[in-house]
Amino acid sequence: MSDEFYLSLAIDKAWDYQLLTYPNPAVGAVILDENGKILSICAHQKAGEAHAELNATKEALESKDSSLKSIFAAAKNPNELYNLIIQNHRNLLKNSTYYVTLEPCAHQGKTPPCASLILAMGARRVVIGSKDLGEHAKGGAKFLSDNGVEVDIGVCAKECDELLEPFLRWQSGNFIFFKIALTQNGVATGGVISNLTSRAHTHQIRSLVDLMVVGGNTVGIDRPILDARLANDRAPNILIYSSKFEFDSQIPLFKVPNREVTISNSLKLAFEKRFVMIEGGENFLKNLDSRVEWILIYRSNEFKMAENIKLNLKLNILHRTRLDDGELLWCKRVNSEQK
Amino acid sequence: MSDEFYLSLAIDKAWDYQLLTYPNPAVGAVILDENGKILSICAHQKAGEAHAELNATKEALESKDSSLKSIFAAAKNPNELYNLIIQNHRNLLKNSTYYVTLEPCAHQGKTPPCASLILAMGARRVVIGSKDLGEHAKGGAKFLSDNGVEVDIGVCAKECDELLEPFLRWQSGNFIFFKIALTQNGVATGGVISNLTSRAHTHQIRSLVDLMVVGGNTVGIDRPILDARLANDRAPNILIYSSKFEFDSQIPLFKVPNREVTISNSLKLAFEKRFVMIEGGENFLKNLDSRVEWILIYRSNEFKMAENIKLNLKLNILHRTRLDDGELLWCKRVNSEQK
Repeated sequence: MSDEFYLSLAIDKAWDYQLLTYPNPAVGAVILDENGKILSICAHQKAGEAHAELNATKEALESKDSSLKSIFAAAKNPNELYNLIIQNHRNLLKNSTYYVTLEPCAHQGKTPPCASLILAMGARRVVIGSKDLGEHAKGGAKFLSDNGVEVDIGVCAKECDELLEPFLRWQSGNFIFFKIALTQNGVATGGVISNLTSRAHTHQIRSLVDLMVVGGNTVGIDRPILDARLANDRAPNILIYSSKFEFDSQIPLFKVPNREVTISNSLKLAFEKRFVMIEGGENFLKNLDSRVEWILIYRSNEFKMAENIKLNLKLNILHRTRLDDGELLWCKRVNSEQK
Repeated sequence: MSDEFYLSLAIDKAWDYQLLTYPNPAVGAVILDENGKILSICAHQKAGEAHAELNATKEALESKDSSLKSIFAAAKNPNELYNLIIQNHRNLLKNSTYYVTLEPCAHQGKTPPCASLILAMGARRVVIGSKDLGEHAKGGAKFLSDNGVEVDIGVCAKECDELLEPFLRWQSGNFIFFKIALTQNGVATGGVISNLTSRAHTHQIRSLVDLMVVGGNTVGIDRPILDARLANDRAPNILIYSSKFEFDSQIPLFKVPNREVTISNSLKLAFEKRFVMIEGGENFLKNLDSRVEWILIYRSNEFKMAENIKLNLKLNILHRTRLDDGELLWCKRVNSEQK
């Protein structure tokens, strides 16, 4: 099988955790043993937790020797896991091949550099999607290459760059996306469209964003709470985007402790934050600020006897994630001729 | 990686040719070498062409020794390919593992049995999704097992059985499905929704079906030709399902040579044929005969400023196939409460 095949497995896995790794990039890694057998397909899942390469190395070693599981289970954090791997790997990954969607980091962060880990494992070859352009982390490919590891960069570069885009936008100051739930026939209104899996996913993202934007109409009509209870996590700060400034203070979203709520007829605040989610309906989507390129569609598995949302809009669908009872579509606008 | 992982690769590949293999089943096969490296992921593509196991064996051997490509290229049909493989394999697949979505056939058809091929390759293990219940082809698993090959049946059985369902319905006399093209916001009307890739796919299916059903309204309004020009193949016979019996004989579909056209206010004819496609719009879908369970949705990548189709309908989405500029959704109705 081709390098593209293995890297696409890493890309798919990474998308499962897209946005959930904030402020880190979504990264996936696949390891093949010296004979070309797949040992692991892993992703970075959450900031503060293990990098994709560390997760994949752990799983690969455990697949070679299951007795390592109890040893690695003792690790209380990624740093301890890293050290346990260095102490116990017994060259089981000698001459392995690593596929990583992003150049392995070369810097000491919460864990030692992934590039050093890969070298310590005795990898023969590392295949990389996107080059790391960050000041701190870059240089992993050169380090590996200088130390005799065969390195190929730029395989599936377009797909890996797309995967990386939210991170690059966080780095440059602002990533903002619009989220909407739709039925199979384009209905966005009239009760809960999305299923429990998709709502849990939304709540996970809500717990991470620096700001959540919602339209004044939605607040008035739905009287939402907009918290992250399904993720058991903190509720996001809210910007109510509205030309009206009078809201019933009994609406649940105002009652959430330790939350900032701002009402404004401008989206300026949203473009000043690093990570922003807009939850809205038809009007919001129709009049979407041209700077908002990313759209996340939760698609349910049913048709509903109701009106669709109506607008002209072309999408580039970057990735599809299957949910238990529906689908997540990661989209970018190609252009919009909204009337 | 698990058996489920490798079999899912075979399942995905097989869906790429779902329905296109008529009257044969859609089947996928994956081969791992003696060390667990993936050598090939292949499918049966078309009746009269090579079975999935034969395609996968050819590719696997070629990946072990590329000089075999020119030898195998001389085969003028699957039977010759089979013989060239038997003569030239040099035990390159000794101790390999085969993953197949359907039990390998044990009968002499247009090619010798796939079970014999797998045995001749020296496979160590065969992992099978669905059991073959057909009178002619069954017995492959037992043959392999009796000859010392390790055989596991029933991995991903649900997914493999779903993949097989059109074939089982062909076998029992009738497989009928409804096809519709929808935008992201559920619009089915107003010009071509689907893109060229999806229309070419439709034309491929049209060239295979025993009957194509279309509503009288569509015929009157769209004045279609309903041929298979994008597949360069024969146009299907047509049943116009209509309570009206007067049509302008200048409508292009009536002008296609060697085509049977029937007008009826009953779908009876459709349930007497083995393989039937219904192409219709909102009304057809709303009043869909309860015996029509399968729905094929071509989803474009755009929103359109127009009305959606309106009905209540729950779907079980069996598979998604990505197209160049859209998506194919293979669905079954869970239930429908149409009002």
